[in-house]
Amino acid sequence: MTIGFTADDFFKCYSIVDERCAAHFALGIAQQLQEPVAILCTSGSAMLNYYPAVAEAFYSEIPLIVLSADRPPHKIDIGDGQTIRQQHVYANHILFDTQLEMIHNEDQTEYLVTNERAINKAINISISKNGPVHLNIPFEEPLYKKVEQFSLEVKVMDVLKDETTIIPDQFFENWNKAKRKLIILSTLNPPVFEKEDLDLLSSDPSVLIMSEVSANVVHKNIVWGIDTLIAPIEFDDEQIAALQPDLVVTIGGMIVSKKIKQYLRRFETKIHYHIGKRRAYDTFFKLAAHIKMPPRKWLQQLPTDYLESNYQQQWLDHFKMYLDKKPEYIQRIPWSDFKIFDLIFNQLPGNITLQLGNSSTIRYAQLFKMNDTHRVFSNRGTSGIDGCTSTAIGAAVGGKQQTILITGDVSFFYDSNALWNNYIPDNFKIILINNSGGGIFRILPGEKDESYFSTFFETTHQLDATHLCKMHDVGYHKVGDEFAFAKAYNSFINDNTRPQLLEIFTPREVNDEILLGYFKYLK
Amino acid sequence: MTIGFTADDFFKCYSIVDERCAAHFALGIAQQLQEPVAILCTSGSAMLNYYPAVAEAFYSEIPLIVLSADRPPHKIDIGDGQTIRQQHVYANHILFDTQLEMIHNEDQTEYLVTNERAINKAINISISKNGPVHLNIPFEEPLYKKVEQFSLEVKVMDVLKDETTIIPDQFFENWNKAKRKLIILSTLNPPVFEKEDLDLLSSDPSVLIMSEVSANVVHKNIVWGIDTLIAPIEFDDEQIAALQPDLVVTIGGMIVSKKIKQYLRRFETKIHYHIGKRRAYDTFFKLAAHIKMPPRKWLQQLPTDYLESNYQQQWLDHFKMYLDKKPEYIQRIPWSDFKIFDLIFNQLPGNITLQLGNSSTIRYAQLFKMNDTHRVFSNRGTSGIDGCTSTAIGAAVGGKQQTILITGDVSFFYDSNALWNNYIPDNFKIILINNSGGGIFRILPGEKDESYFSTFFETTHQLDATHLCKMHDVGYHKVGDEFAFAKAYNSFINDNTRPQLLEIFTPREVNDEILLGYFKYLK
Repeated sequence: MTIGFTADDFFKCYSIVDERCAAHFALGIAQQLQEPVAILCTSGSAMLNYYPAVAEAFYSEIPLIVLSADRPPHKIDIGDGQTIRQQHVYANHILFDTQLEMIHNEDQTEYLVTNERAINKAINISISKNGPVHLNIPFEEPLYKKVEQFSLEVKVMDVLKDETTIIPDQFFENWNKAKRKLIILSTLNPPVFEKEDLDLLSSDPSVLIMSEVSANVVHKNIVWGIDTLIAPIEFDDEQIAALQPDLVVTIGGMIVSKKIKQYLRRFETKIHYHIGKRRAYDTFFKLAAHIKMPPRKWLQQLPTDYLESNYQQQWLDHFKMYLDKKPEYIQRIPWSDFKIFDLIFNQLPGNITLQLGNSSTIRYAQLFKMNDTHRVFSNRGTSGIDGCTSTAIGAAVGGKQQTILITGDVSFFYDSNALWNNYIPDNFKIILINNSGGGIFRILPGEKDESYFSTFFETTHQLDATHLCKMHDVGYHKVGDEFAFAKAYNSFINDNTRPQLLEIFTPREVNDEILLGYFKYLK
Repeated sequence: MTIGFTADDFFKCYSIVDERCAAHFALGIAQQLQEPVAILCTSGSAMLNYYPAVAEAFYSEIPLIVLSADRPPHKIDIGDGQTIRQQHVYANHILFDTQLEMIHNEDQTEYLVTNERAINKAINISISKNGPVHLNIPFEEPLYKKVEQFSLEVKVMDVLKDETTIIPDQFFENWNKAKRKLIILSTLNPPVFEKEDLDLLSSDPSVLIMSEVSANVVHKNIVWGIDTLIAPIEFDDEQIAALQPDLVVTIGGMIVSKKIKQYLRRFETKIHYHIGKRRAYDTFFKLAAHIKMPPRKWLQQLPTDYLESNYQQQWLDHFKMYLDKKPEYIQRIPWSDFKIFDLIFNQLPGNITLQLGNSSTIRYAQLFKMNDTHRVFSNRGTSGIDGCTSTAIGAAVGGKQQTILITGDVSFFYDSNALWNNYIPDNFKIILINNSGGGIFRILPGEKDESYFSTFFETTHQLDATHLCKMHDVGYHKVGDEFAFAKAYNSFINDNTRPQLLEIFTPREVNDEILLGYFKYLK
């Protein structure tokens, strides 16, 4: 297969040794191209290392085609090396999988046709349903023979790409009587709304739009910081009651904000619609329908005779009030994760692809206003830390814009082999916020002083990225305070002769208090 | 779960961030203890990173208990973070898996009993059938509550451990008339034969015993180098016919030597028995029976009226003849992988646990005589390169002897996070043979000069281990010729103040010719 793919100019091929990284790298390319990317490995445990990225592709709806070489079926489980039970290995997280027929000579046209159909089906499902598919491909030795010609014709069926449902009458009925309509925009790549769409949608005073950082929308009438709005009021019964919507609409991928999910579950959501092609999750246990239609089309069919309501204005005002308090808080706080995110988001260059690591990084990022020239991505399918850097590098290779990754230390060191990659663009940059452990566990509830905490939850460590950067020829900048940050930042950003990494150290034990203190301060 | 395990002195707990490494580390411990080791992770993609080690445990028959935390069933696929479809995720490579019941209060005794039964079943299967089992364990928040008492009683059923079949009459019939009996000993840990057993077995002149390096046996009447014997004769029809056995007995795990497997398939094996508790593979397509009985017991029941035969002596003489040629060849060859393995095996200290990486390493090791004070291990279940270092470190922690790992560069860098481990014993040592790529692909057939070869097959690189050693506080020694090796070796071996790594560089383009030249030279 390698010989076939590398010999064909249609394909751009990359060689990445660690399959966990390779699959996330491919995921990053596919995320940018919005087209399937194939990953190809030898038989045995290699393909198991693809699995984290396959599951991520499954939940973040990114087309990925896994091609696993295999031994012939009768050579499985007879004690041969590098053979495992490859068929259906991703069964839980794959849109389609099958095993190709072995073809011993070109007269076996039925097998040829069967394989052609299977390959077509895999490609079409991957494109139309947006996700991973798996072809297991058995080979008998010798493996180095080539055929001069082959007749495979790939037919991408456009019809499948445009599956659409009409808006049910029930929706209009509910919409028309709802005085409080909450629209939640989560992961949307590419963006689905233009400015005029958001003007139109927000001209209805009963419509409150909330967005997450990966929704890639910026508009004056949007509450872009969900946690900033909810955290200060979450134990205030009166406010909480006032926010409660009559109808919820979700558009995009999975919702990052735990606070909004918990809120809409606890204070029973009445009815929930999901709009768009992306999978509908019954996140609030009240999903009424999945309206498979481009969100713009849905928007254009909304009635324009609006109910009287102060729902939108009330919460935009509220949100503004909280935001106004933020600069003061930031001035008061010492060097910490929170402070750094503020510094970074104030200074990042425009027109970049911003990749955000899990799990603290994306949560902090949600507290800061997005630059509308940025495109934001994060692996929010499984929300794993296992391939954030590799995905970002893939995105840098597959995308057109400069790519900058912001990541925490545990994610970064977990995916350390990501840097073992010969294709990293010279202008690729990593901002590594190193608080010596999994700081998210300090933020979550639990006993921080127990003996097990720092070792088994926070997993504290003393690592820094100096050596990895030397090993993989990445420029390295290290800062531990605001002055050093100011000094290092420019050369970090402006040196595009090779990839650069800026490692920012923060004291691990203050970050949780500063973050939780912020929400208290807003009250 | 973490709180429960760390609070109980019965368990020795380790914290390792990268789950791929953690699972291999546990595998290494279990490999040494011959007892189940539990691995424990949070929900989501974490558990997918366990999969390579789970598959290795499945095929190398090592007891491993996977405990994956999960969200409650009704919270799966509703868009929550770090939730995937965890149930049966290892379906293809697990001896048993189930999901525990959620218990909301202590009155739910039926659920308690159900869980107790499931946990018992998992532990018992893992022990009696030797392999991985998986308990998926759903939790609702808050996750930090403890119960003061619980009543779980684990009952390991001894009866299951001693499953035995009797020797079928047909076996004796076949044995008694076979003039050429070939016994192949592969992976055996712990060893199953004492010296007197091998004396007895080899006193039958019709019995030829071949062993692999991981069989952990040394005896004067054993052909311990299968490839050394077969490579020179594999295209000599007369010799090949003379070697052909009437009956094959295998004892141990999967066979490493591809040459013996190919030989016994090509020249149809007449009948094959597998002895012992370990899984029976129909490796030569002629498996007649799996006799589940300790090999010593089987041996004691063998008849002692021997047929006249020169089968054993003929091939022991042949083998000796080849071995006699080896020193001369080694003297002639330049600095290379082959030369280095000779140097290493001549100098390794005694009484160590020797861990061998896949894939060139184990194959080279098969060409050298084992030191009978060594215990040899290698991940030959899936034969993956994805966790060799982590497994070796686990073995060093779980075993009683000093552990030395010999590994190739691709395996080593693949598992680079293995060194992110706070439990590496100070006397643990790594011998890293760095030939700048996957040299095995140069040894295998294929077009070495094609443009795709070095990038996509050999995956050449310029990495060395200096920086990783600095990062993880491992002593580093670098050698590129025999003189440097002699100089560095002693301090590498004798410095037990912290783990040490000896990196030996060889020119990547000569190794294949020298190895293949060896087999030609023997003819």
